[in-house]
Amino acid sequence: MFDLTVLGQQAKKSSRQLALMSTTRKNELLELMAQALLANKTDILAANQKDLDNASDNGISAVMQDRLRLTSQRIEEMASGIRQVISLADPIGEVEKMWKNTDGLMIGRQKVPLGVIGIIYESRPNVTTDAASLCFKTGNAVILRGGKEAFYSNQILVAVLQNALKSAGVDENAVQFVSDTSHDVANQMMRLTEYLDVLIPRGGAGLIRRVKETATVPVIETGTGNNHIYVDKDAQLEMAIKITDNAKTQRPSVCNAAETLLIHQDVAAEFLPKIAAKLAEHNVELHADKRAIAYLPQAVAAKEEDWSTEYLDYIMAVKVVDSIDEAIDHINRYNTKHSEAIITDNYFASQKFLNEVDAAAVYVNASTRFTDGFVFGFGAEIGISTQKLHARGPMGLEELTSTKYIIYGDGQIRE
Amino acid sequence: MFDLTVLGQQAKKSSRQLALMSTTRKNELLELMAQALLANKTDILAANQKDLDNASDNGISAVMQDRLRLTSQRIEEMASGIRQVISLADPIGEVEKMWKNTDGLMIGRQKVPLGVIGIIYESRPNVTTDAASLCFKTGNAVILRGGKEAFYSNQILVAVLQNALKSAGVDENAVQFVSDTSHDVANQMMRLTEYLDVLIPRGGAGLIRRVKETATVPVIETGTGNNHIYVDKDAQLEMAIKITDNAKTQRPSVCNAAETLLIHQDVAAEFLPKIAAKLAEHNVELHADKRAIAYLPQAVAAKEEDWSTEYLDYIMAVKVVDSIDEAIDHINRYNTKHSEAIITDNYFASQKFLNEVDAAAVYVNASTRFTDGFVFGFGAEIGISTQKLHARGPMGLEELTSTKYIIYGDGQIRE
Repeated sequence: MFDLTVLGQQAKKSSRQLALMSTTRKNELLELMAQALLANKTDILAANQKDLDNASDNGISAVMQDRLRLTSQRIEEMASGIRQVISLADPIGEVEKMWKNTDGLMIGRQKVPLGVIGIIYESRPNVTTDAASLCFKTGNAVILRGGKEAFYSNQILVAVLQNALKSAGVDENAVQFVSDTSHDVANQMMRLTEYLDVLIPRGGAGLIRRVKETATVPVIETGTGNNHIYVDKDAQLEMAIKITDNAKTQRPSVCNAAETLLIHQDVAAEFLPKIAAKLAEHNVELHADKRAIAYLPQAVAAKEEDWSTEYLDYIMAVKVVDSIDEAIDHINRYNTKHSEAIITDNYFASQKFLNEVDAAAVYVNASTRFTDGFVFGFGAEIGISTQKLHARGPMGLEELTSTKYIIYGDGQIRE
Repeated sequence: MFDLTVLGQQAKKSSRQLALMSTTRKNELLELMAQALLANKTDILAANQKDLDNASDNGISAVMQDRLRLTSQRIEEMASGIRQVISLADPIGEVEKMWKNTDGLMIGRQKVPLGVIGIIYESRPNVTTDAASLCFKTGNAVILRGGKEAFYSNQILVAVLQNALKSAGVDENAVQFVSDTSHDVANQMMRLTEYLDVLIPRGGAGLIRRVKETATVPVIETGTGNNHIYVDKDAQLEMAIKITDNAKTQRPSVCNAAETLLIHQDVAAEFLPKIAAKLAEHNVELHADKRAIAYLPQAVAAKEEDWSTEYLDYIMAVKVVDSIDEAIDHINRYNTKHSEAIITDNYFASQKFLNEVDAAAVYVNASTRFTDGFVFGFGAEIGISTQKLHARGPMGLEELTSTKYIIYGDGQIRE
C-alpha cells in the first residue's frame, strides 16, 4: 500500500527550509513555476487529454468534463494566477503586536507558517497550481491529493512545479502529490497527525462529511453553501428581484449561490409572481411550501429535505414566513453557516439580521455571490471556511499562517 | 446511558441568547455568580470534603489531593477570579477592520462568540469557575466535563452558578455540567459535532492523546510542555544557572517548567558542575547523556525516552551538544511546541534560535515559566494552546471568539 509517511517526512523536512526562505527568493521560485507551466503546455495538454478520454468511464458529466478540461488559455491563466500570488504581500514574519510586560520582557506575536498543509480536492486541475502557489508563498509545504478523474493532469502539474524547484536547487518536496487516489489512502491522510498541521478539504458535501467523520488532523471545513435570501416586508421589490435572480442564476454551481428564498407574508402576494417570472427566464424550478405555492402554480411542493439541500443547480426552495424572527430561525436551523442576505429598507431589520444570523458572511441588500477572496480584496483564495475555528469565510494568505510568541529578556526569572 | 444531545440542544439554545447579551448585563450576571460562590461556601466545602474522602479510593496522591482541596480562601479566590474577568474588556462585537471593496460594499470583520464550547478537564475544581466565567464573558455557552475525583465539587460549583443565573431570569444552560464521568460519555462528547463548536481538553498527556485520537469536534490542544533550556557557548553562566534553576524548580508540576537542559560543548565542563550543585538544593535528579555524565558523577544515564518525557517533577534530562544547530534540531524533534529558551550574549545565536525553533513561545535570556496568560498581560487564561490552528500559546478572551463578515450593500449584484 502507498505510504504517506514518506511524503509526510519529506514535507516536514522541506517545511523547515521554506519557513526560513526570504520573500524575494519565494517570489523568484514562484516565477520559475509560472514559466515552467507555460514551457510545458504540450505535455500538460496531453496528460489532460488522457483524463478526458477516461472521463466517460469515470462517469463524469458533460458539465464536470468542462471543469476538467485544460486549454492553452487555461494554462496561461494558471501561470497568471501564480504571478498574482507573487504580487501579494507576504504575511510571514510580520509581528502583529509587540509589548513590554510588567517583568520587562518584550513579547511579540509573529506570523509564521502553519508547517505542512494537506489538501484533498476534486476535479478542477487549477486547484493544484492555486493551492501550491498559495502554500509556497506562505512558507508551507503542501501535500496535494486530487481526485482520480484529474489524475494525469494533477500528476504532471505537480511534476512541472517540482522540476522548477529542482532546477533552482530547492527541495522539490515543498509541493508533493499523492499518486494513489484510493479512499484508503485519503483516509490515511486524514489521520496523518504526525506530519500534517492542517487538512483543507475542497469539494462537495460528501467529501466534507467524510473528512469531518474521519479526520484526526485539524481540519478547516470549506465550501458547502446552503444560502438564503430573505425578502423583508420593507424590501424594495425591484432590488429583491435583481438580487435573488443574481444569487440564484448568475452561477448556480458555486458555493455562494443562493438555494432558498424566504419571503415575508406581507409581500408574498406581490413578490412571488414577479420573481417566478424572472427566474423562469433561466428555467429555475421552484420547490415551494404550502403558503408560497398558492402564488406559484408552476412550483413543485417542497419536502422537508429541500430546506437543507444545496442544489448547485437551477432549483430554488421558496418559503413564506410570518416575521423576520421566523426567517432567522429557519436560516440558523438549516444553513451551512456560509452566506446569508436580507433585502430591506428597515434599519432595525438590517441590524437584527446582521446580529442574529449565524454565518461566515451576512449581507444587507447585496447578493450572496460576493463571498469570495478576490471580491473581498484578499487577492487570492484557498477556499471558504464554514467553520468557526481559525478562519471563517474566504481564506487568503493570512489564513495560511499560525503565530509564535518571540520573547526578548535580559535574565528574567519568575518569582 | 447519559444523553449528551440534550445538553447540546440546551447549550445551543442558550448560546443564541448569550451572543446577543450586552457586556453590562454579562458583567452583572458574573457578579451574581461571584456572590453566589461566597454565599454558598459551607455547602461547597461539604461537597469538596466528599471528594477528599473518596480520594484514597480513587488513587489520588497527596500532591493531587492538595490540588483538589478547597478552603474558604480558595473559594474567595475563585470569586476574585470571576471579578477579574468582569474587569476585562469584552472582545465580542469589535469590528477588527472594515473597508469598502471595489463593488462599493462595506465589509467588516466582527468578533463573535464561538458558540458552544466543551471543556474536558482533570482534578482542580477552580477550572470549573474559571472556564465558566471566561466562556460566559465571551458569550459562549459551555459544557463542562470534569474528572470523577472532583465530581461533587464540580457539581455543586456548577449548580451554584446556574442558580445565580436562574435567580436573574437567565437561561441557566449557559453553564452545564456532565454528571456522568465515564470514558464512554467523554468519548461521546468528543464527537458531538452537531452541538459543540470547539472542544478544549485541559489535563495530562494521556487525556490530550485520547482527545486527539477520538475527537471529530474541532479541538484546541493544550498544556503538555516538554520544554528546553539551551545554554549557548556565549551564555553568561551566572544567568544560565539562575534561569535553568527557575525554569526547573520554581514550580515543576506545571506545563511551562523546563524538562531538558542542552549545553554547548565549549561550556559544559564549567557549567555542568555548577548547575548540578544549584539543582541539588532541590534534590533534582539528573538524567544525563554520555558526554554530560562525565561532568555529573551523581547523574543517571539518560535513555531515549528521557528526551520526550514531560517529568513534571524534580527530574531534568541533560545533554551536551556540538552546536546551536544540534540544539535546535534536538528541540524541534522532541519538543511539544510549548516553550523554549536560549541563554546567550550572541546576537546571531539569539535570532537564529527565535527563527528556527518551532514552539508557541521562544525566549532569549528568560525563564520558560513566563508562558502564561496573566504574565503576558491577557488578564486571564483558559489554557495554553500547543497547536497551530486558531490559537497558539496562552489563550485569553480573544481566543474564545470567532469572526463574522458583516456586509452593507445598496443593491449590489455580481456581474
